[in-house]
Amino acid sequence: MPQTVYVLNGPNMNLLGTREPEKYGHATLADVEKLCATTAARFGLDVVFRQSNHEGEIVTWIQEAKAKGAAGILLNAAGYTTTSIAILDALLAVQVPTIEIHMTNIHARESFRQNSYVSKAAKAVIAGFGVDSYRLGIIGLAGIVGAKDKQ
Amino acid sequence: MPQTVYVLNGPNMNLLGTREPEKYGHATLADVEKLCATTAARFGLDVVFRQSNHEGEIVTWIQEAKAKGAAGILLNAAGYTTTSIAILDALLAVQVPTIEIHMTNIHARESFRQNSYVSKAAKAVIAGFGVDSYRLGIIGLAGIVGAKDKQ
Amino acid sequence: MPQTVYVLNGPNMNLLGTREPEKYGHATLADVEKLCATTAARFGLDVVFRQSNHEGEIVTWIQEAKAKGAAGILLNAAGYTTTSIAILDALLAVQVPTIEIHMTNIHARESFRQNSYVSKAAKAVIAGFGVDSYRLGIIGLAGIVGAKDKQ
Amino acid sequence: MPQTVYVLNGPNMNLLGTREPEKYGHATLADVEKLCATTAARFGLDVVFRQSNHEGEIVTWIQEAKAKGAAGILLNAAGYTTTSIAILDALLAVQVPTIEIHMTNIHARESFRQNSYVSKAAKAVIAGFGVDSYRLGIIGLAGIVGAKDKQ
Amino acid sequence: MPQTVYVLNGPNMNLLGTREPEKYGHATLADVEKLCATTAARFGLDVVFRQSNHEGEIVTWIQEAKAKGAAGILLNAAGYTTTSIAILDALLAVQVPTIEIHMTNIHARESFRQNSYVSKAAKAVIAGFGVDSYRLGIIGLAGIVGAKDKQ
Amino acid sequence: MPQTVYVLNGPNMNLLGTREPEKYGHATLADVEKLCATTAARFGLDVVFRQSNHEGEIVTWIQEAKAKGAAGILLNAAGYTTTSIAILDALLAVQVPTIEIHMTNIHARESFRQNSYVSKAAKAVIAGFGVDSYRLGIIGLAGIVGAKDKQ
Amino acid sequence: MPQTVYVLNGPNMNLLGTREPEKYGHATLADVEKLCATTAARFGLDVVFRQSNHEGEIVTWIQEAKAKGAAGILLNAAGYTTTSIAILDALLAVQVPTIEIHMTNIHARESFRQNSYVSKAAKAVIAGFGVDSYRLGIIGLAGIVGAKDKQ
Amino acid sequence: MPQTVYVLNGPNMNLLGTREPEKYGHATLADVEKLCATTAARFGLDVVFRQSNHEGEIVTWIQEAKAKGAAGILLNAAGYTTTSIAILDALLAVQVPTIEIHMTNIHARESFRQNSYVSKAAKAVIAGFGVDSYRLGIIGLAGIVGAKDKQ
Amino acid sequence: MPQTVYVLNGPNMNLLGTREPEKYGHATLADVEKLCATTAARFGLDVVFRQSNHEGEIVTWIQEAKAKGAAGILLNAAGYTTTSIAILDALLAVQVPTIEIHMTNIHARESFRQNSYVSKAAKAVIAGFGVDSYRLGIIGLAGIVGAKDKQ
Amino acid sequence: MPQTVYVLNGPNMNLLGTREPEKYGHATLADVEKLCATTAARFGLDVVFRQSNHEGEIVTWIQEAKAKGAAGILLNAAGYTTTSIAILDALLAVQVPTIEIHMTNIHARESFRQNSYVSKAAKAVIAGFGVDSYRLGIIGLAGIVGAKDKQ
Amino acid sequence: MPQTVYVLNGPNMNLLGTREPEKYGHATLADVEKLCATTAARFGLDVVFRQSNHEGEIVTWIQEAKAKGAAGILLNAAGYTTTSIAILDALLAVQVPTIEIHMTNIHARESFRQNSYVSKAAKAVIAGFGVDSYRLGIIGLAGIVGAKDKQ
Amino acid sequence: MPQTVYVLNGPNMNLLGTREPEKYGHATLADVEKLCATTAARFGLDVVFRQSNHEGEIVTWIQEAKAKGAAGILLNAAGYTTTSIAILDALLAVQVPTIEIHMTNIHARESFRQNSYVSKAAKAVIAGFGVDSYRLGIIGLAGIVGAKDKQ
Repeated sequence: MPQTVYVLNGPNMNLLGTREPEKYGHATLADVEKLCATTAARFGLDVVFRQSNHEGEIVTWIQEAKAKGAAGILLNAAGYTTTSIAILDALLAVQVPTIEIHMTNIHARESFRQNSYVSKAAKAVIAGFGVDSYRLGIIGLAGIVGAKDKQ
Repeated sequence: MPQTVYVLNGPNMNLLGTREPEKYGHATLADVEKLCATTAARFGLDVVFRQSNHEGEIVTWIQEAKAKGAAGILLNAAGYTTTSIAILDALLAVQVPTIEIHMTNIHARESFRQNSYVSKAAKAVIAGFGVDSYRLGIIGLAGIVGAKDKQ
Repeated sequence: MPQTVYVLNGPNMNLLGTREPEKYGHATLADVEKLCATTAARFGLDVVFRQSNHEGEIVTWIQEAKAKGAAGILLNAAGYTTTSIAILDALLAVQVPTIEIHMTNIHARESFRQNSYVSKAAKAVIAGFGVDSYRLGIIGLAGIVGAKDKQ
Repeated sequence: MPQTVYVLNGPNMNLLGTREPEKYGHATLADVEKLCATTAARFGLDVVFRQSNHEGEIVTWIQEAKAKGAAGILLNAAGYTTTSIAILDALLAVQVPTIEIHMTNIHARESFRQNSYVSKAAKAVIAGFGVDSYRLGIIGLAGIVGAKDKQ
Repeated sequence: MPQTVYVLNGPNMNLLGTREPEKYGHATLADVEKLCATTAARFGLDVVFRQSNHEGEIVTWIQEAKAKGAAGILLNAAGYTTTSIAILDALLAVQVPTIEIHMTNIHARESFRQNSYVSKAAKAVIAGFGVDSYRLGIIGLAGIVGAKDKQ
Repeated sequence: MPQTVYVLNGPNMNLLGTREPEKYGHATLADVEKLCATTAARFGLDVVFRQSNHEGEIVTWIQEAKAKGAAGILLNAAGYTTTSIAILDALLAVQVPTIEIHMTNIHARESFRQNSYVSKAAKAVIAGFGVDSYRLGIIGLAGIVGAKDKQ
Repeated sequence: MPQTVYVLNGPNMNLLGTREPEKYGHATLADVEKLCATTAARFGLDVVFRQSNHEGEIVTWIQEAKAKGAAGILLNAAGYTTTSIAILDALLAVQVPTIEIHMTNIHARESFRQNSYVSKAAKAVIAGFGVDSYRLGIIGLAGIVGAKDKQ
Repeated sequence: MPQTVYVLNGPNMNLLGTREPEKYGHATLADVEKLCATTAARFGLDVVFRQSNHEGEIVTWIQEAKAKGAAGILLNAAGYTTTSIAILDALLAVQVPTIEIHMTNIHARESFRQNSYVSKAAKAVIAGFGVDSYRLGIIGLAGIVGAKDKQ
Repeated sequence: MPQTVYVLNGPNMNLLGTREPEKYGHATLADVEKLCATTAARFGLDVVFRQSNHEGEIVTWIQEAKAKGAAGILLNAAGYTTTSIAILDALLAVQVPTIEIHMTNIHARESFRQNSYVSKAAKAVIAGFGVDSYRLGIIGLAGIVGAKDKQ
Repeated sequence: MPQTVYVLNGPNMNLLGTREPEKYGHATLADVEKLCATTAARFGLDVVFRQSNHEGEIVTWIQEAKAKGAAGILLNAAGYTTTSIAILDALLAVQVPTIEIHMTNIHARESFRQNSYVSKAAKAVIAGFGVDSYRLGIIGLAGIVGAKDKQ
Repeated sequence: MPQTVYVLNGPNMNLLGTREPEKYGHATLADVEKLCATTAARFGLDVVFRQSNHEGEIVTWIQEAKAKGAAGILLNAAGYTTTSIAILDALLAVQVPTIEIHMTNIHARESFRQNSYVSKAAKAVIAGFGVDSYRLGIIGLAGIVGAKDKQ
Repeated sequence: MPQTVYVLNGPNMNLLGTREPEKYGHATLADVEKLCATTAARFGLDVVFRQSNHEGEIVTWIQEAKAKGAAGILLNAAGYTTTSIAILDALLAVQVPTIEIHMTNIHARESFRQNSYVSKAAKAVIAGFGVDSYRLGIIGLAGIVGAKDKQ
């Protein structure tokens, strides 16, 4: 049975493709989901793909990832990245390998975006490749969980 | 067809009239809604009036304002004003003219209330007129969107 | 008719017993509920026991405690303790005697956990006794509201 | 006899219309004075309109407002907003209802402009509506002093 | 042979009952001693009760608690709470279970009172119950050292 | 020929007696001038007594004190105390013995009043005695300049 | 019966006259005591004069001043001025009019000496007159307690 | 017709030659004026040379420089350098090429002198050459405005 | 002709494999070079692989990358990441697409490692995958420069 | 007659040998005294060896060292190192050559231990050699006071 | 024999003319060398002109300037300006008159560029004139070392 | 075969004897080398003595010390002490016992010299004994590595 990867997206990620396209590009969240699924399939992995504007829902999904035995989490917490200790605590509680994803290089942006609570619990960070950050995140996670490239 | 103004209220605003009336007065949120609708009508504007204790729901409503083609937003984010980057990101994403509203002069209150993420995306700010902050906000927004006073 | 105490628990408290048991112990949240109910009963008090991962829901429940005439609140806001002005505002609005509860001594943990917005409105604080923090909180609150020990 | 409103403008406001018009617009200070007078007249209020580059002169005029029995003050202290404790002390001393006015949303500008000593004594703040900030300020002040709209 | 609990009180605690009674109540330190002794007796525990205005004396007593084999310490270091690394070092050296006690909720007071060096070594904290903080502290400590309630 | 003492008063000091009398008392600035003159006369000293709302005028008067050979300066810079490097530089330039005067204890007030540039150049500071601060300042200055009490 | 003034001196003040005489002068602490007594006598006041290197002893003496019905306290807490919350708490507890005394102008010295906990409870402050700070303190305190100059 | 350069000097610069000569030298402000005029003449430039202790007057003169079509400004704002947003705003408003001048190297002096609001709008900075800073400033400005050396 | 990627390694990276292997693993820098070359070959890219303990040498190599027309840079600046403005300036000057690489998640380490000057100029960041961070960096860079996977 | 060295130890140093032996070793304070005496004897120096938990007592002993004509002081102020301005003032007052001693390298410990007031007056610092820090301190002090090694 | 001036340039200055020409202009470092030599010749001065990307090499050259008896140094330390204490120490050690040079006005740039260690030892600073900053620096230095203009 | 000690000196240490001799004395670096060799010989230790102005070279030498099996390192990193994470990382990587050496007491100097990255990895610190700091460092290191004094 294939292992599962949870790809969780935070607030406003549902606007992808229409929101500041000069900064975030024209791909939609549906495109990102497809990209994740295709990449994961190469490694024999399934993807559960979610988006929520609610901090609490992301906390719940992180708990669910653990309960469902997920192999890992890709987490783009968006606006909650720098403010949510609740999400940090969820990650610390479940101990599932987590890759922090950002489409832009947050470290080159406004100073109030540069603290990341997610980083304190994430195994690794990928930022600045646009939509491709997700693809690299899946590849990197596959390496961590020992999933072989079937290509 | 009349243009619409979204008036969005954050956590605990539903307690208006019963909560610290010596600071916030005796008007209820229903009174505020009526005041907004009446004032907006003078300028031929409709009002969508909402309140939520959930940060995520306010994010969603800001997105909805854009999707529904709203002329502008009056946002009293209350306790989320100083902590929510998710709401800031929603405002940055939708690019709908937004007036930040506060009943009290937050700049004269506790220092932890004086940073406002909403301000970073708001076109204008009105604070300290009590319930009347809303009425002035509608008038000001009408000016911005070019709605004429029909009185 | 017995007075009621609201015992409100924040994000990830539902994982109690499975989450870092070496730090939080093996008791589950159901065990905590039982402990609270038993202790409260000694003082002729009823317990309403809740948990949510949503900040907004905790705000709503604090409002409900007031509306239902609760004698007091025990609040373990977990990850929202240090970030939620919305919860602080709810507590300031309802003016119900509130005991802030933590299982660990947060003041001996990471510095980013040491600011507590809850403390600004709480009457008292108990931290560091593990599950027993709840029992002591009920006993202390009973003293505040004048409920006699019936044992 | 009509009540008087003092509209006081700080340094460089005399350049209005020629100074960075893309940021401050093409209206001149004389236009602003006319707008204030017209709006005030609707509420049966007179306007005393002044501008000075001198911090001390603004202090003196605030004192004069009190001595002349002014109903209120609109104060756009411009560059002195964030540095003048002398103006703050004048406002605290006279206890005349004061509306802090800014043409731009100062909270979205450089960080060194975001502290406002005026705010500590002002009853209310209006910022970001350009010249219209003055008109809204008069309307808001009228509400505070109980002047009825005669239109 | 009964186990002993050291209850140590810092500077100015001897004024209890006469010092700002609206904040600290009318009970005297002798009343507190009695309350501690009575509560401890319920658990078969003896109490050594001390007060000193000298930081060095409190350091010495903490060392004595260890030397005498005390089961635990209740420490209300009062004004030394936020300034004494010497007391912190004593607690770290003796490794006796220590409960930090405050009559008021120090986290809701002036900011310079909110750092606590005692917290860095204390197992638990109780603050804000007035004199009752001591009673709860004894009960909580009894739980920690496994002393059964004999009532 | 008698030596002269310059007593210089900063912004809003002209309101003395009418401004927040519960904090500053009912004596007027004319009363203070009389008190200074009377006290100085005891030591054979003349007083030049001034008040200005203008920072620049105080700078000029400090320079004048030097040019006129004044024995010393009593300076209550009021609101300019914490913001004026220009006044500090004037004091550093003239090297006339200066006593910093405050009617209230500024160190017990708002934190933004607690930095004093005047202190960096003043020989001594007197604060908190109300109007009597001036009398003590004259007596202290007399001691510094070696003027004998003729009483 | 004459009223009493407590003059309390902190650590190292016993070295006066030998310690950095170019900064503190050649008068000894015995000289200061005489100066205080003589000045107090002019106003019909007795002086209790003490020095200690122990923070705790100063706390105790402040309590004693209250117990003995002292009219006021002159407190030169020396090195404890900027570090002792215990002394601050003692002053807050006894509510005896207190004048903070320093021989040098501490606000012009190293930055770590510029915070004063004593100031938060002192009625007034005198600094920078050398030994004469004490004499002015007695005169000022006499004014506060209404003791007439008998000369 | 020759182009004009405004050379504006802030508070206490009129004391030049008498003020701390070991730091500022023995040249007077009249000497500086002559040096500026002579140097400017080499490049066919006229000089308007002013000094004021009033922040507001410097603001006014900067506006005048623009109104009179000045080629550039040399500004030694002295004590207002680090505190005046009003002067900064004047410079931003007039957009005349401005050279910030200091006689001493302010970056090697007290830390409170090291922030410069003038720098935020100045094209260039010259500091530390004593009176010669002015001469270099004229030469540098000549280069910026394309005035040729006629020597 | 194949495009070139510069892979530049900062101080102490030559110790890889022997330095804290429990944190950095057993692969040597030669292994990393091989991994980079193999991965790059998949995309038809050549690799120039360097290591230096000298900040200045890394600056020079970044300049060389530009001069040699490199397609991109992978930069693991190690200890210079958080201190070198010289390297930042080199990156800003050459404008070659740069991927910041770290083997560990620096954002979860000591706070003094969390500022990255490299991030201010890097297009993207990969951290925390151990040696695999390099492989992912090559893949990500390939995407940015449009190099197709030939597998 | 032999010169004397005062070796002064602060709070909790009396616990040496029993306190966290894995950090501080098994030598007792008596062992340290012997080591100091033996080493000093090599240079013809006598040792006065003291320990106190009282800040005030250490102040007194520093004064005594001066009064008794001591050649130098070795001071391990332990917990008072980072908080005691009283001890700093004593050292400044007596001007006896002082070596600051720490058994551990305090600069590699918690950040709140890294400020040392003792350092501001000490001639030299030795930290991190365990008990041997004392021996090296004696040798170093001998060099400073010109005592020859008699071995 | 002519006196020598060392003109030392820090990292990335070798890119001048190609690096962000819109900010730094089109002149190359060779052009700057020529400009320095020509200007220096006017005053009978020789120029030694160097550039290095290595902090250590700049340190060495500063030492060499002293050893070779140079009359002065012009130092544009570029990226090392704000980070190098080693360069500051070299300047403090050699005590050769040094002019700090910047092509841009660093005080108007990013905040992390605004601290300058070079300034702490430099006699004077010139910033913001582009390449002309060097010419002015030579002229200013000539004045300091008393070299006459031979034109 | 004798064990080796690396004595590494940072930038500007080659100027010893000529650089600010009133602060650093007249001994040259060659004298220091001799002192180290002589002292080490007493313990049967060899010395490798180096100086460099290059941060990278010091990193390399620390690595070499490990590779050559050195018993320990004495490191006076001079200006790199407070800025070099690269040196810190080298020390952490090699795990050779390291003594941090300073000739002056850096903790009593300018605040920007008081952070030491070297301290985070050093076993011990000696500062303030001038050249003798080296001799004490050798003796202390000998104790740590168990080398017996052969005298």
